[in-house]
Amino acid sequence: MQKILIENVSPSVDHGEFPARTIVGDSVTITCDIVCHGTYILDARIRYRHVRERNWRYSEIRHIDNDEWSGQIKPSKIGMYKFVVEAWIDTISTQFRDAKKWLEAGEDISSDVLAIKNMLEASLKAQTGSLVSNLVSDLAKDRGKAIESFDRESPTGKEARSLQDKKGFSESDEFLISVDPRIAGYASWYELFPRSQGSDPSKPGTFRDCIERLPDIKEMGFNILYLTPIFPIGETNRVGRNGSRPAKRDDPGSPWAIGNSLGGHKTLNPELGTMDDLSALLAAARSIGMDVALDMAFQCSPDHPYVKEHPEWFSHRPDGTIRYAENPPKKYYDIYPLNFDIPDPMPLWRELRSVFEFWIEHGIKIFRVDNPHTKPLDFWNWCLTGLKRRHPDTVFLAEAFTRPKLMYGLSKAGFNESYTYFTWRNYDYEIRDYINELSRRPLRDYFRPMFFVNTPDILPYVLQHGGRNAFIMRAVLAATLSSLWGIYSGYELCENMPVPGKEEYLNSEKYEIKKRDWKAPGNIRDIIARLNKIREDYDAFQGSTDVTFLGSSNPNILFYMRRNPSSRSWALVAININPFEEHTSKLSIPSGIAPGILENTQWFQDVFLGTRISLPGREFNLTLAPGRKSAAILIPEV
Amino acid sequence: MQKILIENVSPSVDHGEFPARTIVGDSVTITCDIVCHGTYILDARIRYRHVRERNWRYSEIRHIDNDEWSGQIKPSKIGMYKFVVEAWIDTISTQFRDAKKWLEAGEDISSDVLAIKNMLEASLKAQTGSLVSNLVSDLAKDRGKAIESFDRESPTGKEARSLQDKKGFSESDEFLISVDPRIAGYASWYELFPRSQGSDPSKPGTFRDCIERLPDIKEMGFNILYLTPIFPIGETNRVGRNGSRPAKRDDPGSPWAIGNSLGGHKTLNPELGTMDDLSALLAAARSIGMDVALDMAFQCSPDHPYVKEHPEWFSHRPDGTIRYAENPPKKYYDIYPLNFDIPDPMPLWRELRSVFEFWIEHGIKIFRVDNPHTKPLDFWNWCLTGLKRRHPDTVFLAEAFTRPKLMYGLSKAGFNESYTYFTWRNYDYEIRDYINELSRRPLRDYFRPMFFVNTPDILPYVLQHGGRNAFIMRAVLAATLSSLWGIYSGYELCENMPVPGKEEYLNSEKYEIKKRDWKAPGNIRDIIARLNKIREDYDAFQGSTDVTFLGSSNPNILFYMRRNPSSRSWALVAININPFEEHTSKLSIPSGIAPGILENTQWFQDVFLGTRISLPGREFNLTLAPGRKSAAILIPEV
Repeated sequence: MQKILIENVSPSVDHGEFPARTIVGDSVTITCDIVCHGTYILDARIRYRHVRERNWRYSEIRHIDNDEWSGQIKPSKIGMYKFVVEAWIDTISTQFRDAKKWLEAGEDISSDVLAIKNMLEASLKAQTGSLVSNLVSDLAKDRGKAIESFDRESPTGKEARSLQDKKGFSESDEFLISVDPRIAGYASWYELFPRSQGSDPSKPGTFRDCIERLPDIKEMGFNILYLTPIFPIGETNRVGRNGSRPAKRDDPGSPWAIGNSLGGHKTLNPELGTMDDLSALLAAARSIGMDVALDMAFQCSPDHPYVKEHPEWFSHRPDGTIRYAENPPKKYYDIYPLNFDIPDPMPLWRELRSVFEFWIEHGIKIFRVDNPHTKPLDFWNWCLTGLKRRHPDTVFLAEAFTRPKLMYGLSKAGFNESYTYFTWRNYDYEIRDYINELSRRPLRDYFRPMFFVNTPDILPYVLQHGGRNAFIMRAVLAATLSSLWGIYSGYELCENMPVPGKEEYLNSEKYEIKKRDWKAPGNIRDIIARLNKIREDYDAFQGSTDVTFLGSSNPNILFYMRRNPSSRSWALVAININPFEEHTSKLSIPSGIAPGILENTQWFQDVFLGTRISLPGREFNLTLAPGRKSAAILIPEV
Repeated sequence: MQKILIENVSPSVDHGEFPARTIVGDSVTITCDIVCHGTYILDARIRYRHVRERNWRYSEIRHIDNDEWSGQIKPSKIGMYKFVVEAWIDTISTQFRDAKKWLEAGEDISSDVLAIKNMLEASLKAQTGSLVSNLVSDLAKDRGKAIESFDRESPTGKEARSLQDKKGFSESDEFLISVDPRIAGYASWYELFPRSQGSDPSKPGTFRDCIERLPDIKEMGFNILYLTPIFPIGETNRVGRNGSRPAKRDDPGSPWAIGNSLGGHKTLNPELGTMDDLSALLAAARSIGMDVALDMAFQCSPDHPYVKEHPEWFSHRPDGTIRYAENPPKKYYDIYPLNFDIPDPMPLWRELRSVFEFWIEHGIKIFRVDNPHTKPLDFWNWCLTGLKRRHPDTVFLAEAFTRPKLMYGLSKAGFNESYTYFTWRNYDYEIRDYINELSRRPLRDYFRPMFFVNTPDILPYVLQHGGRNAFIMRAVLAATLSSLWGIYSGYELCENMPVPGKEEYLNSEKYEIKKRDWKAPGNIRDIIARLNKIREDYDAFQGSTDVTFLGSSNPNILFYMRRNPSSRSWALVAININPFEEHTSKLSIPSGIAPGILENTQWFQDVFLGTRISLPGREFNLTLAPGRKSAAILIPEV
């Protein structure tokens, strides 16, 4: 035990075993309890550095109340940082304070002042300090005045503190912060199948066709183009349209059935184009400020070269067959899972990591990883830690729909962001409970939720039944509740034909090539564009999950404050989550929220409707219709 | 990162840096999250041992839900224990489960069964297992039946699990539990000044007089006799009656002004008796099942031998004087504080620890330590850890009224129990908030609150104004809210003459010798005896702080459930905290509390009033008068 107890340090994930996450350029608030015997005045600071830097930096941390301290650091470089809180006894300030109390109580302080002078003079022997020299003279001239006017925050006080020995010097354990690229914390994703981007219905779309689509996607305000798998597709056991078996001759197969005689995870499906074509797509995206994300599914079609070259990486049953990917009683006949449960998994681990390395070398920095929760956590930790050491600007999104603690475990293992249950949270209390969980610390310190409104696998019931109004409503929710949101292409067209009774698309794009009219009537492109513009313009929507639900008398209307913990800016969002009916609600903002701002009439910009609105105080009625007038997104005018 | 993440382990204090506390013989519930990729069935156990034992013991921990696990250990020996949670993949149960699912889905499972048989046979090669041999035959005879009927909790299932390799074996960090003697967790203290126990008004009482008082104290049900300091008292600057200075010739001085020419902390005040007399008191107490606690204040009168022998242990000012004990602007003129802030504190640390050693050798095991919060935490940790290694049955009570986190820090440093703010919590919300804080984990896992209703320094206003009824009410609160409570002698006589306007006793016993009629009219001895009997009879009142406040429509009546986390037994307490008026309240018990018991009419023993009472369900009215009928203490009849 050290002399001073430095505990309850935040942000901290499993007591520093795993890193908290932040975004480069954001401020990180560091809090802790600093507990020392007696009634000393204490001094403390935060020591931090990028793991690749040799010298520590220092940042202020200040006493708030009840032994609680708070400070900030602003890491300027992508990569892993360490920080430690240091504390010591501020002897000189303590002595000044006590002498002042004695003076006020009418006691003789001559001996106390002598002690202070001796201490200051001793500290001057080792170092120079002109302000402290003056202080010593002042104490000799008029000790009462010098004692009374000492201020530890003044230049003189600071110099006196800096010269003294750090008595009782103690330090916290070491904690980690992963400083991620901005794109890992704030991004709007657009998912598409490259083979569906062509304009010629007689042949599959290509990377070149994707380049043609870019302006269209950029116009909607997305900044990440996410490509479903681009590797060769297996022939054996190929699955046909709507999941039928056997596939017909011209069925293109699922892009997730990876690998055939041409190659596996380091090979392009030649129908999509060449490596040069892919490079051209990356360059075109970059030129308009967009990034490209790749889908990486570590699984193999029966034709994948691994199957023959590395039979030890698959689970052979006693009859010699390999197990299909299975989640009993479901079977994916076109996919063999990799078997991590083998005596020596390291060659497999190294090969898979080299797949990421391969695409990183080809310019890809962002990976959406399919089903990471079926692979061991220690593999991911080893793989992602190693990759990020060499390529700190890479970003990994975990596509895991599984038990919450396993999803959170994947973030601890190194995933920058993660899919969530957002798609299945519909009622007010469901949304509130879920967002409250994600906003809670320490979870929000390391788990970044991605809110996809739909995916090729998920067409939620609310979109099936609520139609266009529901598409608008769910887009507003996703875009304003999370800094990371995304759509799978077709959402802007409000496509919602399901397999009857299921949350799946009929004629799923997984098994066939689509051609779409991207500007078809009834599309909601302008609304999506507006949402992405709001996210870009107001950084309240760009920080980690910090949502506070406010009062709403009507469960059809959700009312919340979104706040950016780094910049402290905020916005209010009210939204009618019922796509069928207009609703009115009495909304209320508890006192303590935005103090000083909402005591009287306050003007806001409603950036969703494009109007100004004045709120009369902390309680008011609001009516919201389904559709284009379903929400108010209010930015305070200051 | 290990393959399986074992996190959120409880009890845990600062992630295992400091021990949680339990009482020997009590069960400790251990919970954690165990997170593994995929959908494997997992197995886990708790590994634990006394630090002096060589071999680990094992205890079961079981999956509850959502990756949460719970188990129990029951440490049987006083001292420090370590525990670790281990987890691994239960391959055989997983394979049986999956085969069963395939079977139910109508798939051919012959190859799956073959794999299971191979695995079982491989495990039989290394070890014998007759049940597993039978299982292998059963699989050969009727595989469907064998697959369907496999039960991992059956003897066969358990044998199969025990024979298999622990795949993915992972373990948590190591956590500590201090297993304290029962008296550290459950005790009723009676504080007295030995010099006031005599019957001859012309001379001070002695240890022999204390022996005479023992039956009286035992009759009230107390099991710890706590003696204020028994060391020689200083002459220089002695403080007289009511804190006056200079003291008169016959003023006895404060027992906390320790040391004179006869000696210091290892010497008895000869007026109280000899070491033999003290031994006789200890023996007499022991013979009726009581323990004796000693007050230990590490401070010195100006006449203490340390002052001359070890001037380096005191803070000399530039004018040569030593600082008095001071908390500016307060001064204790008869006391010099020890100075821990010296270049080489180890000789001082060792000397102070030897003081405890000295009294431990003379049969004292329980120490009430005065003002530990003015001495460094690292000193206490070093001192108490060392002492407990040699004398694990010692108990240290911290008399610290200071910032909450410093009080909690002292418990982390090694104090078994601590004084609290109880004396200053009067209104319903004050009591609720404070008890809720103390009941919260991890605090209740290591901080044991002592509820003194009064002390020689504290005569709370509620006792001054509320009189006898208030004395009864506060005794009920202390005795039922905390497993550790105590009174300072005179409480049973409802003594409440204050220094006007202060929470202090007029004619404080700190500065003068008292003679009392211990059976004076108006005493509440019988009520105190009843409370202590209830505490002794019902172990709901003997565990760590586990209090749940229940519904009460009237703020004058508090209603709560006290529960023992080890035995799970519980009691209900309703108490009128207004000593002036009768009050009625509608009391309600939320569903979920005592499920099954309170759905219909349920009979209780009211052990405070000595009657039976039936509650009609979860809501009922109760009227409580001040005084003897101010409370209901209800034990369910089962």
